[in-house]
Amino acid sequence: MDPRRAETGKNSDQIQSGHVYHLALDIGGSLAKLVYFTKNDEHIVGSEKKKSPMKASGISNSSRNSPVLNGRLNFKKFETSKINDCLEFINSMKLHLGGCQQPESPGSQTITIKATGGGAYKYADLFKEKFRISLDKEDEMDCLVAGANFLLETIHQEAFTYMGNQKQFVWIDKNDLYPYLLVNIGSGVGMIKVEGDGKFERVSGTSIGGGTFWGLGKLLTKCKSFDELLDLSYRGNNRAVDMLVGDIYGGMDYSKIGLSSTTIASSFGRAISENKERDDYKPEDIARSLLRMISNNIGQISYLTALRFGLKRIFFGGFFIRRHPFTMDTLSVAVNFWSKGEAKAMFLQHEGFLGAVGAFMSSDKHGLKELLANQKVERPPSKLSFSLDQTQVPQQDGELNGDESIECSVYGA
Amino acid sequence: MDPRRAETGKNSDQIQSGHVYHLALDIGGSLAKLVYFTKNDEHIVGSEKKKSPMKASGISNSSRNSPVLNGRLNFKKFETSKINDCLEFINSMKLHLGGCQQPESPGSQTITIKATGGGAYKYADLFKEKFRISLDKEDEMDCLVAGANFLLETIHQEAFTYMGNQKQFVWIDKNDLYPYLLVNIGSGVGMIKVEGDGKFERVSGTSIGGGTFWGLGKLLTKCKSFDELLDLSYRGNNRAVDMLVGDIYGGMDYSKIGLSSTTIASSFGRAISENKERDDYKPEDIARSLLRMISNNIGQISYLTALRFGLKRIFFGGFFIRRHPFTMDTLSVAVNFWSKGEAKAMFLQHEGFLGAVGAFMSSDKHGLKELLANQKVERPPSKLSFSLDQTQVPQQDGELNGDESIECSVYGA
Repeated sequence: MDPRRAETGKNSDQIQSGHVYHLALDIGGSLAKLVYFTKNDEHIVGSEKKKSPMKASGISNSSRNSPVLNGRLNFKKFETSKINDCLEFINSMKLHLGGCQQPESPGSQTITIKATGGGAYKYADLFKEKFRISLDKEDEMDCLVAGANFLLETIHQEAFTYMGNQKQFVWIDKNDLYPYLLVNIGSGVGMIKVEGDGKFERVSGTSIGGGTFWGLGKLLTKCKSFDELLDLSYRGNNRAVDMLVGDIYGGMDYSKIGLSSTTIASSFGRAISENKERDDYKPEDIARSLLRMISNNIGQISYLTALRFGLKRIFFGGFFIRRHPFTMDTLSVAVNFWSKGEAKAMFLQHEGFLGAVGAFMSSDKHGLKELLANQKVERPPSKLSFSLDQTQVPQQDGELNGDESIECSVYGA
Repeated sequence: MDPRRAETGKNSDQIQSGHVYHLALDIGGSLAKLVYFTKNDEHIVGSEKKKSPMKASGISNSSRNSPVLNGRLNFKKFETSKINDCLEFINSMKLHLGGCQQPESPGSQTITIKATGGGAYKYADLFKEKFRISLDKEDEMDCLVAGANFLLETIHQEAFTYMGNQKQFVWIDKNDLYPYLLVNIGSGVGMIKVEGDGKFERVSGTSIGGGTFWGLGKLLTKCKSFDELLDLSYRGNNRAVDMLVGDIYGGMDYSKIGLSSTTIASSFGRAISENKERDDYKPEDIARSLLRMISNNIGQISYLTALRFGLKRIFFGGFFIRRHPFTMDTLSVAVNFWSKGEAKAMFLQHEGFLGAVGAFMSSDKHGLKELLANQKVERPPSKLSFSLDQTQVPQQDGELNGDESIECSVYGA
């Protein structure tokens, strides 16, 4: 239990450069997300790292309340349709040389990885057959909620509001966090009432989510990727395809019902009265209408659901958002509009990795324990907890939703 | 005031065959709807009529509580994009020879017609310039609500439920009708809390409506009309383009969250993982996915809105439905699913004509009064009310949402 007993430099043949000591997966309908821990003296994929003399060893020998390990928490995503790329990546990380298996017979044993999301079931056989990786399935919602709770409780600047190009971090009082509504926008949308650690209920959802945006967008614009479609939407104008209140009323505002002439009366409704085909419209205009339609709808259903259960806060997560300013703005405007300014949409810095972080946190962290045991820590801690380096969290315009890593400390208990 | 004084056969040069004595319009974003009254001895457009000797005169000479007029209420629709067809139709009905104008100078006067919907504003100049028709604008929601209230209070078998191919008429107690939620699905969707005659509030809505179905459908399938698209959807299978829960979980049911493997996880989500373009999908499959996506969403938002305002009953109207069994079934299933069986979707026989009926009822019925005056009724009634012939309302599989007419009596007050 006492991290001061930890020794460094032993069994270094087992702790080779590039090793992953703990990894978890969240394989959704569209994207597979990875979260993994690497020790500090190692090469970090896709990032440069400053070594401090103290931290360079990776294993701390400081006082009781100091970390037992210093390292980095790494985030990575793949398209689920290219699941083999994900498998190859995991294999290339030499996970089998890390701490996840018995050290005496590297390569011959089955490795166990925590995994959540539908793909944890769907691709279980593939992982086993190809690389002897056994997926230890964690419940998807358990993980989502555990990830969101961990991030909201641990990271000071995790939550923020975004409206009219203004990003504002929201200070979350740990003691006043619950209950809240977690809206996870993946291929579909799940809405979860969260009342505490492990206390939650799926209360609503909608099938009109990220998969709808991408699926319809692909059929309507011939875009090759979700990101391309999102980029397109940024340049488009939804007036080209949407029927606005002004189109029906001939420019007169209809303020009596609280709608202005530019309010969308019917998404894609303009297409019905024009003698145009798909290819006569600009793909960016179609992309923008799609994004507004879907974001608006999610914002509206989220607000109605929060209201139904008396939830003051709505946090949006999932890979649909991707910190895309226009998406966040539309969700915020929708929540603001339908709540008449009483509710605010909030977003998470690590929006896309909630499930993966949850799977990572909820598991037994075998690899890290092996690592500590190999370091001849006399009494390895029975429980490990993580803390992220606040200074590593990017401010304002930082990007944290692709392939990146942040400094991380592991504490024993 | 006394209808017994009514005389028949006078001024017959003014009451010519094919005349419309009272007409109202509802010009929406997609469709223009007409409701008009014709006297019983006249040729009825698009319908065959049995003449009874008593009714043939059109003007009753019976007792005080008997109708002052017998005739037919006629329903007709046009695409708003073909508004000129509508104008031509009105002109061909020889409205200017009916009772709506000063008889002494036919053709030279401006005729006034009650109209509602955004098009009443947008096309006002067109009507005036082309045929000297002045549109007297009525508030859209006033009309919708007046129409729905009239139909629900007056017609015994106006409301019905529809689920699993079972249509069931619902007996509505006039004294227990209010409050209810009226969901009008036109190009967009309006949701109105109705608490009585003239007592209502627009409380919600969504831009994902009939215009979205038709607009997206047109771009995705090259269908030429809304009805063609609706027919297509009947033959399609949404599994081809939707991502089902089973697609994500590899066939395993996810009953813990109340979803089965066939629940739609993401509308159009399957399109993202397949190497297919628009034209590789069957148009009927796309049409069906669209219809399910939109109906489901309207059902969900309607239920959440009804719940929010404590409304027990949800009535669906508007031309999106068109008595299409699959549309009604999907709306019903959505309301049933989200309310866990506690709420039921109800439909209206005259779903598409609520606004037009409301405009018709709310106005002063100049034409009918002129007609009565021309008949030398000594004291023409100051107020007129309508009653529809119950026996004319089709049972079970009858169609009442296109071009049709029903027997109608006018009473004085």
